[in-house]
Amino acid sequence: MNIIPHMIKRYEFGQPVVDTGAVVMDVAPSIGEMPFGVVESRSPLKFKCGLSRGEMVFGLGENVRGINKRGFRYVSWCSDHACAGENDSSLYGAHNFLIISGSARTVGLFFDTPSRVEFDVGWTRGDELVVSCDEDGIDVYVITSEEKRKECALKDIVRQFRRMVGRSYIPPLWAFGFQQSRWGYKTEADVRAVVENYRSRSLPLDSVCLDIDYMEGFRDFTVSKERFPEFAALNKSLAEEGIHLVPIIDAGVKAEDGFGIYDEGRAGGFFCTTPGGDVFKAGVWPGLSAFTDFMREDARAWFGSKYKALVDCGVEGFWNDMNEPSLFYTDDGLKAAFRKIDDFRGRELDIDSFFDFTSVGGSMSCRLEDYRNMIHEVVGPDGSKKSVPHARIHNIYGAMMTRASGEGLSAILPGKRTLLYSRSSCIGAHRYGGIWMGDNCSKWGDIELEMRMLPSLNMCGFMYTGADIGGFGDSSSRDLVLRWLALGVFVPLMRNHSAWNTRMQECYAFDGGTEDFRSVLSLRYALIPYIYSEFVKACDSGDMMFRPLCFDYPEDEIARSIEDELIVGNEVLIAPVCRQNAGGRLVYLPEDMTQVVWKDCRASESHVGKGVHYIDVPEDTVVFFIKRGKSVPICGTIAQSTDKIDYGSLVRLGDDVPYSLYRDDGFTTDIDVAANTVELWA
Amino acid sequence: MNIIPHMIKRYEFGQPVVDTGAVVMDVAPSIGEMPFGVVESRSPLKFKCGLSRGEMVFGLGENVRGINKRGFRYVSWCSDHACAGENDSSLYGAHNFLIISGSARTVGLFFDTPSRVEFDVGWTRGDELVVSCDEDGIDVYVITSEEKRKECALKDIVRQFRRMVGRSYIPPLWAFGFQQSRWGYKTEADVRAVVENYRSRSLPLDSVCLDIDYMEGFRDFTVSKERFPEFAALNKSLAEEGIHLVPIIDAGVKAEDGFGIYDEGRAGGFFCTTPGGDVFKAGVWPGLSAFTDFMREDARAWFGSKYKALVDCGVEGFWNDMNEPSLFYTDDGLKAAFRKIDDFRGRELDIDSFFDFTSVGGSMSCRLEDYRNMIHEVVGPDGSKKSVPHARIHNIYGAMMTRASGEGLSAILPGKRTLLYSRSSCIGAHRYGGIWMGDNCSKWGDIELEMRMLPSLNMCGFMYTGADIGGFGDSSSRDLVLRWLALGVFVPLMRNHSAWNTRMQECYAFDGGTEDFRSVLSLRYALIPYIYSEFVKACDSGDMMFRPLCFDYPEDEIARSIEDELIVGNEVLIAPVCRQNAGGRLVYLPEDMTQVVWKDCRASESHVGKGVHYIDVPEDTVVFFIKRGKSVPICGTIAQSTDKIDYGSLVRLGDDVPYSLYRDDGFTTDIDVAANTVELWA
Repeated sequence: MNIIPHMIKRYEFGQPVVDTGAVVMDVAPSIGEMPFGVVESRSPLKFKCGLSRGEMVFGLGENVRGINKRGFRYVSWCSDHACAGENDSSLYGAHNFLIISGSARTVGLFFDTPSRVEFDVGWTRGDELVVSCDEDGIDVYVITSEEKRKECALKDIVRQFRRMVGRSYIPPLWAFGFQQSRWGYKTEADVRAVVENYRSRSLPLDSVCLDIDYMEGFRDFTVSKERFPEFAALNKSLAEEGIHLVPIIDAGVKAEDGFGIYDEGRAGGFFCTTPGGDVFKAGVWPGLSAFTDFMREDARAWFGSKYKALVDCGVEGFWNDMNEPSLFYTDDGLKAAFRKIDDFRGRELDIDSFFDFTSVGGSMSCRLEDYRNMIHEVVGPDGSKKSVPHARIHNIYGAMMTRASGEGLSAILPGKRTLLYSRSSCIGAHRYGGIWMGDNCSKWGDIELEMRMLPSLNMCGFMYTGADIGGFGDSSSRDLVLRWLALGVFVPLMRNHSAWNTRMQECYAFDGGTEDFRSVLSLRYALIPYIYSEFVKACDSGDMMFRPLCFDYPEDEIARSIEDELIVGNEVLIAPVCRQNAGGRLVYLPEDMTQVVWKDCRASESHVGKGVHYIDVPEDTVVFFIKRGKSVPICGTIAQSTDKIDYGSLVRLGDDVPYSLYRDDGFTTDIDVAANTVELWA
Repeated sequence: MNIIPHMIKRYEFGQPVVDTGAVVMDVAPSIGEMPFGVVESRSPLKFKCGLSRGEMVFGLGENVRGINKRGFRYVSWCSDHACAGENDSSLYGAHNFLIISGSARTVGLFFDTPSRVEFDVGWTRGDELVVSCDEDGIDVYVITSEEKRKECALKDIVRQFRRMVGRSYIPPLWAFGFQQSRWGYKTEADVRAVVENYRSRSLPLDSVCLDIDYMEGFRDFTVSKERFPEFAALNKSLAEEGIHLVPIIDAGVKAEDGFGIYDEGRAGGFFCTTPGGDVFKAGVWPGLSAFTDFMREDARAWFGSKYKALVDCGVEGFWNDMNEPSLFYTDDGLKAAFRKIDDFRGRELDIDSFFDFTSVGGSMSCRLEDYRNMIHEVVGPDGSKKSVPHARIHNIYGAMMTRASGEGLSAILPGKRTLLYSRSSCIGAHRYGGIWMGDNCSKWGDIELEMRMLPSLNMCGFMYTGADIGGFGDSSSRDLVLRWLALGVFVPLMRNHSAWNTRMQECYAFDGGTEDFRSVLSLRYALIPYIYSEFVKACDSGDMMFRPLCFDYPEDEIARSIEDELIVGNEVLIAPVCRQNAGGRLVYLPEDMTQVVWKDCRASESHVGKGVHYIDVPEDTVVFFIKRGKSVPICGTIAQSTDKIDYGSLVRLGDDVPYSLYRDDGFTTDIDVAANTVELWA
């Protein structure tokens, strides 16, 4: 398959308020009507098209529900929405690319806008897709394919889109190691205890993430002197054990006179303002905070340069949080809340007023009114500066923070790959960093949610991603962490993370020993050469690393109904156990495959036929499948961190055919990694 | 299998504050230690026992999570918890019966108490069950079986328990017809439109439920004169169309001088009081309300007699709501909230105080402090009266309301079966009425939740039950209602119900026509003779009508991991499609079976072998399976209501063997329905 970018057409609907930065390819505007569907309104755009029976809709990145997105209303509006359920229409990202695929057509649609968009995918009417924008000015890209086979057309459209939006971020190899995180590691001793607990039990580990507790009063780019008195020395000593620290950076900068970052930002005019020109402030973790105007190039460069304080201590990886941006409260919002509460005082409440009263507390965060009073300075296509309320460009704020960080880190550490992932995102940010899947929950259903998001995010360019294993919100349990790890083994960003006030969920935190955790984790380290290799191949080619079965077997009617199995890379099919107390599961194989059973840090292989099977999967075991005519390299010895991987120990699973391995030798992202291919056992 | 009630042992731990009424059999107390486990504390009771690898735990009635309850903490504390998710530990009922079943033992445990109980089923430690009570005074029943085969032991223990707690409530036949409900039918015209919409499309229907909107200002036992000016005439005219109205009754009685029910209750001293002896009041739908002290026999008799006002209008069915009881607010709670809010006024909030502030609104409902200030008068075992705070007997309040209603309706309509179901419940209430599964949500996951609750509730005696089809909270969609109906077809209480301010979800409310709704609904009416028959058999025998596969196939290792299929009655296996956009599903059959495909109101049969299969299930189709050597009677013509069922049209599906049909000919519940058995095709 060749990439055929001439199959992309761009339709303009008014003048975008700002370039989102999503598209890196020059696509001339098309004249005339969209090739299908109905434009009910041009400004703001309302687009409708029919969905025929059996047509599937893929994409929309980070969202709830299935891989096939039909049957729900999704709203692109980056939201701080922890512990979301299947009826929550907005999560942390805004990923406006989808593919409609049926017997008569396969077509991609990208709605390029920094503003709110609603996708009614056959919800109001089962046979209709309705896309409604809030703001004027949007580019719609329509991508078709000349490939006749549906499989090829689907993949060709994804490749065209990914070429159009630019190559996805590639982190360093160590970012593919296991990461342990928790909101609650407060001291150097806490961090060292985590490392000691992993190392002493031969549980592999590459990183410990630091949540907001490491800072001095939640101030960005500070480290608590009391709790981390020797931060650089700590980084150095951990590096010797193969461990990286990955600190968090929040979007909000504490608005406190005398705090250097704040003083600098204010002096430079780098913060968003009120309509009156004062610094816009809202309460987040540090209390009232200012928000860098990431729409401005100079503000991005300034903020990006600040990472140097931590890099100088030996840090090479970061996660950016709270960058939707989440606003817990503003002075205006608090005043309005108190006014409303006072209205209720002394009245006898009826049932309506009671519910109004109880809802006051929840109405203060992330208010649209506040986003309207938060002003950015943007440069229009003609080069002129103008003021724009945040509400109009809300969806690219987090993406622009990622860009600031990514460009900043490239400048601080030229030619070196660094780790970076963000909570909020928009297409375009995928070139600068990865994302985690936001603040999920310790729910069995969230394992399946991760499986469904993986292909949807890959389509949209987000390759370095993963869900918080074990679940962030609520308390987890031993079996939930184990089963989630068994999926995480295959996922680029493999991180166990949990929230304050929940049960500890590190791999050593539960009764019952750690042997089965070691068994599962060791598969990750045995597979890292393969996972890294498939990851980079997918970034280079514009393919999805994770695909629903129906992408590879589009003529297979059964495959279309299977959303709890995935194809990983070019070789593997996974079918994780996602239900509590299940000792195994039913699995559908669309062709004959090699079944690999990983247990006690060893793989055993057998052949299984196309069709349905029950597979027995004890909690210490991972079962996966290799396509016929394919092989998977796997380490014969298990490293405790990625720097110890013994490539000489690689053996091959599956059929007796060569496998092309990409290796990471510290290439900069400017050099095509594909050049660094080793044909194994050719 | 015979029932062997001598295998029940009772252990006393202190003097119960009140008899819960759960047990109707005289079981002499056992002397000595419990036969297994450790009693860590006797008062209040804390009981621990080991759970070995592979042991399963069944029961606990209305709760989240799986059929096998291992791996979570459940709290018996009747809670008004709408739209619950898998981490919510308390729903509307308190059902303290469980069975531990493994290779070495099968044993039932019933914790008979009106107070709060926590069940840590292998959550804190994977190998341990910990049961912790809040209050002194509890009876623990231990049930074992002399049956050697695990299947027989499981069923024998359930039968013993069910015999001990008394025969389950049997509603009239029409209660097995389809019920349409919505919080929002406000007028006679609304109701007539529902009926007209069903009848004109040949969509079968037996009942329309009236939520709180039918009343005069949410006052119990009133009917709005303005909106239902001719209520008796309406009931009469609907009856001619085969339709019953089923009005709601709330636990809270509007505390309004001049409102007859309130005046009577106050004059009779029938309401719960404050510690100072005033009527205890809390805000619910009608505003400040009083709560009948259902612990008192005279108060039950009084409240139960009030249903006559509606029965006299032709009503023969009711649902009791808000009877945990839900308390939205009290004056004390409001005052505390305002005081707390005033503490925050004018202060600069930090992040902790901000979250304290936002949580004030949510802290007002169902406060433990309020339950402690709500006083009941109870009669102790020695006949003496004493005052007891509600908090100590909280879990039986709803059950006692059901008892009041059930006994009241028996007195008002002697010898006639009436329909009654409740939101809150405790074991014991199963003799007086059914329950619906509480205020669920329009989520795909809640279809599976219903499947998991059915066997758990059946174990505990709740046979007439079902979830709100399409989901109560949040907006539903066409495919969700259709797929949920396809499960509901087999469930005794088959009701479509939705909340105020959500999308309409009646079977005619969506675009795309009603043919597929008719196809699915018609199966219900074809199967009503079978469903009614299996229901009554299960009530008479003490068997579960819905069983997990591993109850019938306990030696089948695969069956133990399957929780998305169920055995229904003695003949049928169901495997509903519970995932959006799936055109079918994988199914495991533990033995050869007859597959029945119901489509276009017709059944077609084929033989399928033991093992794993993919079944194709379009949205207008229901697929189910019949065990070998069994047959299922099915109507050849589809009635539009239960009174039109043509028993002469019955044909048989499955194997060529007789089926014993129970028929309802209006017997009173005093007569053993089993006498009314017809051997079909013997």
